[in-house]
Amino acid sequence: MSALISEKQLLQALQWRYATKTFDPNRKLPVATWTVLQEALALSASSYGLQPYQFIVVNNPATRAKLLPHSWNQRQVVDASHFIIFAARTTMTDVEIDTFIGRIATVRGTTKESLAGYRQMMAGGLLSEAGKVRAPQWAARQTYIALGNLLTSAALLGVDACPMEGFVPVEFDKILGLPAQGFTAVVCCALGYRSADDKYATAPKVRFPTHELIRTV
Amino acid sequence: MSALISEKQLLQALQWRYATKTFDPNRKLPVATWTVLQEALALSASSYGLQPYQFIVVNNPATRAKLLPHSWNQRQVVDASHFIIFAARTTMTDVEIDTFIGRIATVRGTTKESLAGYRQMMAGGLLSEAGKVRAPQWAARQTYIALGNLLTSAALLGVDACPMEGFVPVEFDKILGLPAQGFTAVVCCALGYRSADDKYATAPKVRFPTHELIRTV
Repeated sequence: MSALISEKQLLQALQWRYATKTFDPNRKLPVATWTVLQEALALSASSYGLQPYQFIVVNNPATRAKLLPHSWNQRQVVDASHFIIFAARTTMTDVEIDTFIGRIATVRGTTKESLAGYRQMMAGGLLSEAGKVRAPQWAARQTYIALGNLLTSAALLGVDACPMEGFVPVEFDKILGLPAQGFTAVVCCALGYRSADDKYATAPKVRFPTHELIRTV
Repeated sequence: MSALISEKQLLQALQWRYATKTFDPNRKLPVATWTVLQEALALSASSYGLQPYQFIVVNNPATRAKLLPHSWNQRQVVDASHFIIFAARTTMTDVEIDTFIGRIATVRGTTKESLAGYRQMMAGGLLSEAGKVRAPQWAARQTYIALGNLLTSAALLGVDACPMEGFVPVEFDKILGLPAQGFTAVVCCALGYRSADDKYATAPKVRFPTHELIRTV
């Protein structure tokens, strides 16, 4: 495939994006845009392809209001067009692996038996004693790939975003009933459009110099 | 900013990308493309903006060969045009926070004193006893935002990629001398161009149905 965008356009999008502090509460994402951003989330890469997460989109204003005090009253939670909670699985068992193997068999029109080697590889990595200890962190990390993908995808579509770690996971979990489903809130992302008076929009972007950040050996 | 790409083009790029198993060892990224992908890495979002990571680009074929046996002999390590190791800080101290505060002051032309509140917020989150325990995982997660951004950015430029967790971090750390610098290898990404005979390129993409993955409340 040839490039769908020029190098210059990619840079433009990445320089344009910033962690939006103040959203315009009156502007909502067009349906077509939100539909594709959902597809983008679903198409994110994940370890083994296992997608050990769920994305909770909170549209109900009353639920958003309940989340607000547990996110240091950051107004993005209630003002943004869309508010997404990235929830990771807290344990991995045979069930999740077998469900995934079943899904591969369905999508690729093959048998579960032919996937025995792949199943064994995943089970070896995730269901060993060491694997079980690592599982929650492993799952949490995968949600951040989806977050990185979403931030870049949104910027390219001209949508503002704010990634948010500043919230109390145990309170979010309670409000959303996540533990009963085997998930826990890891990170959030507000999506929408910046308010005209968000002073952070024009602040110079602070990054370490590329030569300090990237080392070539 | 208006969209730089259509919804359809974004979907096309995300559906085109896959975890490339076999790279064409003879095709290298053009300099302009690699330059912008480095900029993309540097422009990734991170918690507080602290960028608690370093990206190690391994160009030396002898070093790549040393990494190979510690990555289950996955040929992407040696065949891809570029091989990047995402290394996260293993501890956070006053030094890193003060260096960052200094950087903000320089870039935004302000004083360190005016950033005292922001400094205190970061120190509260990262230098408390609980924060110190969380720091390595917190830093590791940030590298995955950069990974997600890189995968999407590469796809838009028509560059193939393979994210890789299948390696032995302690061996990579030794080979690259990371512990002495306060970093540890977390995840890798190979970049380049798919080989014409990579059968995975045409395998249908396996994802859980969007309605199972995304829950709207």
